[in-house]
Parts: sequence; structure tokens; C-alpha cells
Amino acid sequence: MILVLNAGSSSLRCALFRPGVGAPAWRAHVAGIGYEPHLAVDGAPREGERPPVGCHAAVARWLFERLPAAPTAAGHRVVHGGRQHAAPVRLEAEVMAALECLVPLAPAHQPQALACIRAAGETWPGLPQVACFDTAFHRTQDRLAQLYPLPRALVDEGLVRFGFHGLSYAHVARTFPHGRVLAAHLGHGASLCAIRDGRSVATTMGFTTLDGLMMGTRSGAVDPGLVLHLIRGRGLSPDTVAELLNERSGLLGVSGLSADVRVLEASETPEAREALDLFAYRIVREAGSLVAALGGLDALVFTGGIGEHSAQVRAAVCRGLSFAGVVLDVAANARGGERIEVQRAAVKVRIVPADEEREIALSMAGLLAQWRNGRDRLWFGRG
Amino acid sequence: MILVLNAGSSSLRCALFRPGVGAPAWRAHVAGIGYEPHLAVDGAPREGERPPVGCHAAVARWLFERLPAAPTAAGHRVVHGGRQHAAPVRLEAEVMAALECLVPLAPAHQPQALACIRAAGETWPGLPQVACFDTAFHRTQDRLAQLYPLPRALVDEGLVRFGFHGLSYAHVARTFPHGRVLAAHLGHGASLCAIRDGRSVATTMGFTTLDGLMMGTRSGAVDPGLVLHLIRGRGLSPDTVAELLNERSGLLGVSGLSADVRVLEASETPEAREALDLFAYRIVREAGSLVAALGGLDALVFTGGIGEHSAQVRAAVCRGLSFAGVVLDVAANARGGERIEVQRAAVKVRIVPADEEREIALSMAGLLAQWRNGRDRLWFGRG
Repeated sequence: MILVLNAGSSSLRCALFRPGVGAPAWRAHVAGIGYEPHLAVDGAPREGERPPVGCHAAVARWLFERLPAAPTAAGHRVVHGGRQHAAPVRLEAEVMAALECLVPLAPAHQPQALACIRAAGETWPGLPQVACFDTAFHRTQDRLAQLYPLPRALVDEGLVRFGFHGLSYAHVARTFPHGRVLAAHLGHGASLCAIRDGRSVATTMGFTTLDGLMMGTRSGAVDPGLVLHLIRGRGLSPDTVAELLNERSGLLGVSGLSADVRVLEASETPEAREALDLFAYRIVREAGSLVAALGGLDALVFTGGIGEHSAQVRAAVCRGLSFAGVVLDVAANARGGERIEVQRAAVKVRIVPADEEREIALSMAGLLAQWRNGRDRLWFGRG
Repeated sequence: MILVLNAGSSSLRCALFRPGVGAPAWRAHVAGIGYEPHLAVDGAPREGERPPVGCHAAVARWLFERLPAAPTAAGHRVVHGGRQHAAPVRLEAEVMAALECLVPLAPAHQPQALACIRAAGETWPGLPQVACFDTAFHRTQDRLAQLYPLPRALVDEGLVRFGFHGLSYAHVARTFPHGRVLAAHLGHGASLCAIRDGRSVATTMGFTTLDGLMMGTRSGAVDPGLVLHLIRGRGLSPDTVAELLNERSGLLGVSGLSADVRVLEASETPEAREALDLFAYRIVREAGSLVAALGGLDALVFTGGIGEHSAQVRAAVCRGLSFAGVVLDVAANARGGERIEVQRAAVKVRIVPADEEREIALSMAGLLAQWRNGRDRLWFGRG
């Protein structure tokens, strides 16, 4: 049994997969960690079983006691792998130390994942554990796509475009391994990725998860001069500006109402309408930039909560991308089927449910097979 | 005679046009203002005539004494017109006061222009004077194109995408008044503008001139999270970060050698090559975003020093835009003719020499005619 842990900022997903990696044998989801934790198992709420109010480590240990079977290996989603990790890596002490150093670059996610890794190591000493990184998928990009036009010394120190949502994009690439694919991971965090023949060519998130698209509460890309103006011209502290751009902008800031697309679609205020319009407009603009990186488009793939469930957002994005050959089947889009382009369209338009846990299990199954065959240097692959 | 003044951060261009606004009757250019000013008249250096070492106002007064004819009206390039000015405006006291308030948004250009306006007013009391704004051309954009996904209150306070280089783009639009035109103003500062039927649809510069493309010494767009990281994570002061992104990045920062494309093209270092490659790559990516805003492309127009003179940069950009139908005539591009697309190409590719002074004179000539006809409310047009 492969155990997979996916730690979010205030949630923890946990799944067990049999070696063939089909549907998970068991899965659990704890949301509201730290304030009002509640459990769901195999998709069903378990009101009677209350997870502890503590941190991710406490919740993880509590879940470990409820596993229906003991794991033979554990895989973890780790948001930040830095520049060196282009593939999953076995979690040894030196790797853990290196990942600790990346905490300042992903303070809302990295510590939670590391806490879960330590909790699993304490619960099952000697259990092989692997980190799968959200940044790793993008390390195949050409150097130009990863560079900011900064002084060379800063680039050498690691101020580059890391990109994120890589496990979600790897899942899309596994589903569409050929051609020029534009993947849109639209959730509370949102980004786009240009994928050519299964490899990341460019992506909208950059050094941090603030870059690129407008999101639920994040502004996405804004003029760096505007950031400096808020600090120098308006006298806001850098912490206030960070909070402003990360927590109070995006759909929430423009609508003045909610960060949730469902709430905005149900609202009739012009501000909610404008927030949704701007959300789609920004996707279309960034999509154009990625179509240029791909040199054209063969498939457009929607994933993530909004990508999978908002027919309105998908329709608005597809209207804006008609110049690239995108023609949506309006009825299929409204139904939300897997395939939503019109017959004989030049560009496929598809919905692929995000499944980061299965992606982790699949890449681990491959590693475990290689490991059993003795080629265990791959456990330490740095790409 | 119409007098036109175009004040740069350390230069002043001055031209006299007859009412028909053909070629200028007289033009002068003072560069090196403040440290080593030198004069050229009608394109020829005048070593014997040394402008004063003082500020723009002193140089302007010195030039006024050398004009071959007295002006009947004066037009000025003013970088920033804020949100309210979508057209040229007659310079009355209240307008001047409003333009003073915009100095913090364009500190390297706005004060120089205002100093020249005051100098002309003192030299010729009662002379009608008009401001033509670099931001005005973009006020035709849809609201979505001008919005950042920020809290609504900040947008209402004026934190929007102003866009710049508008006089240069107005000149391109005058030359190509129909269809979907992507204009690339590539100089020491650089931006792109999407123009549909003569009106700005979107542009890469934003709240400040730092947004968008990589430039000579400016980074262009970088992750706002990176700006905050430099301040909060690295402990740099906001002023240091502003200087870093405005003065030490871009072609200069990546090459470690020069901000000048000519120097980099003559160099054989890999760093110079990488700087040029990244410059073109960033243009292609942002161009893709603007092609999406236009919904396709009918013409690509290069202007500005680099756009007019670097066949290498034009060729690299056109290669990256082949997905949009751009096919360059390699020989015509090397020669640098006006028309550089292949025969029967879907997309025109043209070189249009930048001429902001003539654009100012032309828009003034129109205003003067209307004024003489008594419809002088147009002098106060706020768009």
C-alpha cells in the first residue's frame, strides 16, 4: 500500500493506493485545520469523528491511527523543490534540511508538508518516503522561460520563475502526452501551463504563487512599480502590501463580495460581474502569451475546482481564444462532459479532474518498481 | 508656426512646423542636459554653440532665443495625463496644477515638461499652449484592460494601468488606421500596444513605465512577490529595489555589459547573447497576450530606435510570432525597408519611424482649426 499525503495551508488529504494505482483504496480529507477541523472519508462527512484542533502533524498522526492498512511507502506533495529538484526525491536527512531552507519561499504550505513527513517517519521508522514537488514539472523549461530580466547575480542566487501546480499539470500531461497543450488549473490558486509533448514549456506563476493570473484573493501579476508605489508613495508597510495583494485582491477585492466563483455567479451586482469578467480576461491574456510560447495550440485543458465546475468561466475563456482555433460545444460545456469542443474542431477542449494524490502514487509506483530492481540511484534523482 | 517641445529626462527636442505640418521647418535637439549639454540643429551637431549647463527651463529659454520664427502656438509632450485626459488639453492654470499632482507618478519626465511649459509662457505671454499626453491614447481601452485585480477602493483612487508611449502609438495608428495592429515601440524604454481600428485596446506598460517588456535597464514585469521578497526576505530598502529594477536590470543586468542593443549585438559573450534572446522572448510572450486581446493580427509595426534599426531583434520577434501569421521577408528586413513582410503574407510587417513631434503638431493643427472656427470648447476637452 502506498500512502499519499497532500498538505494544504489548512487542509490535509490522505489516500492509500494499491500497487496498481487505480482508484484509491481509502481516502480521507481533513479541512479547517487549526480552527474547526472536520473529517470526510471516501467523500462522506464523518461528523462523529472530530480531528484534533492542533497543527498538521497532530492531524496526520490522528489519521495514521485510522488507516485501514499499514503503508509500505509514503509520498508527499511538497510545494517547493527549489531549482535542483526536477523529479521526486527520497526523503533523507540532507534533503529535509534543504527543503527546510525553502520554507520562506512557500511559508503557507512548505512547513505543513515537512511536519507530515516527520510525523510519518516517527510513526513508521524506516518507512521509505518520497517528496513530489509542485515546482519540479517546470524544470524542463528552457532557461529563457525561467529567467526574470534581473541582474545576473540575483538570477544565480535563485531569483527565477519556479512555477507551481506541477503535480496537477503532470496529471494533465499524463492524460495528453502529445502536442501543444494549454492547461488551466483554476482553483482558489490559479495558473496556466504551456505543455509541449508532455513537458512544461512555460507557466504563469513565477518566483512565488502571486504571479500570473488573478485568483480568489490574490492579485496575480501587477506592475512592480505599483508595489513600490504602495510602499514609497502611500507609506504602506511591505507586510501590509503583501497581505493586500495575497489576501484582499483578486475576485474578492474586485467584487467586494467573495473569493468564490459560485457566490459571484449567483450574485447580480455589477461588481461581481466585473470580477468574473476580469478573471476570464486575465486568463485569455495570459493564455495568449502561452500560445506564443507553444507556437500554436492543439488542446486546451481545464482542471481545478473552477476549471471543472464553472461552465461560465470556461465559455468566457474559450470565446477569448477563438483566435487560436478554440470552438466550444456550448451544450457539452453546460453539461460538463470530458470533451467539450465541437466536432472536428482544430483544438481539443477538455475537462480533466485534478488528482494530485493519484499523480503522486503513480510517480511513486514507477520509482518503487525501479527501486526493487536495484536501480535505486533514481531515488536520489536531481534531474 | 507651431512650436513643439518634447522633454526627455535629460534631453529636449524642439521643432517648428508650418500650418500644413509637413517636415519641420526647423528642429533642434539638446542632449546631456544637466551634465554635458550639446546641441544639434536639423540633425547636424553644433559644436560651437553650447547650451547652458542648467536645467530644462534654462535650456528651453536658450533655444527660444535661437528660433528662426516666433510661434503662434506651442504643443508639449507631457508623459502623464492621469485618468481624466483622453485628448490634448489647453494649458490653463488649473490644468497645470492637476499635472503637477502627477509628478510623483512620472518623476523623471513630468517636471521637465512642466518647466518647459512655464518657460514658454514667460517668454511669450498669452501664447496658446497645449499638452499632448503619452497616456491619453490608451484611455479608449475597455475598462477591463485598464484594471488591476486590486481592492476596488484602490482602483477608484487611480491605481490603474495608464499605459505610455501613446504619442508614438497615435502616430502608428495615424499610419495604419484600420484593422488589428500590434505596435512595438522598442527604444531605451519599450512597450507594445494592441490597436484596433486606430484605437488602443491594450498595452504592456501599466501604472508605471516599469511594467511589461524587458528594457534597456528596466526589468519590465516581474512577480510582485519577488519585489516583496527583495524587501522582506533580503532586507533591501524599497529605494534600492526601485533602483535595482529601473536602473540595473533589463539588457544591462542580464548581459552585465550594456543597455545598448548595438553593443550587445557586436559582443560575442554568451551573456550578451542571452540578454538579446530574453529581450526578444519577452516581446514574443507579451505580443501573444496582445494578439489575444485583438483576437488575431493584421499588421505588426516596429518603431523606436531598436524597432527601426535592429534587424536581428525584428527577425527574432517575427520568428516567435509565426503562429499568428507573421512571415518576414528576410532580405527586406536586413535592408530595413518600410515593408518587410513576404509577398501575399496574411500579416503586414512594417517599420514606421517614431515621430512624436510631428504627431503633436498634427493633433495641434486640428485643434487650432477648430479653435479658429469658434468651437473652442475642444481646447478644454477632457475626453
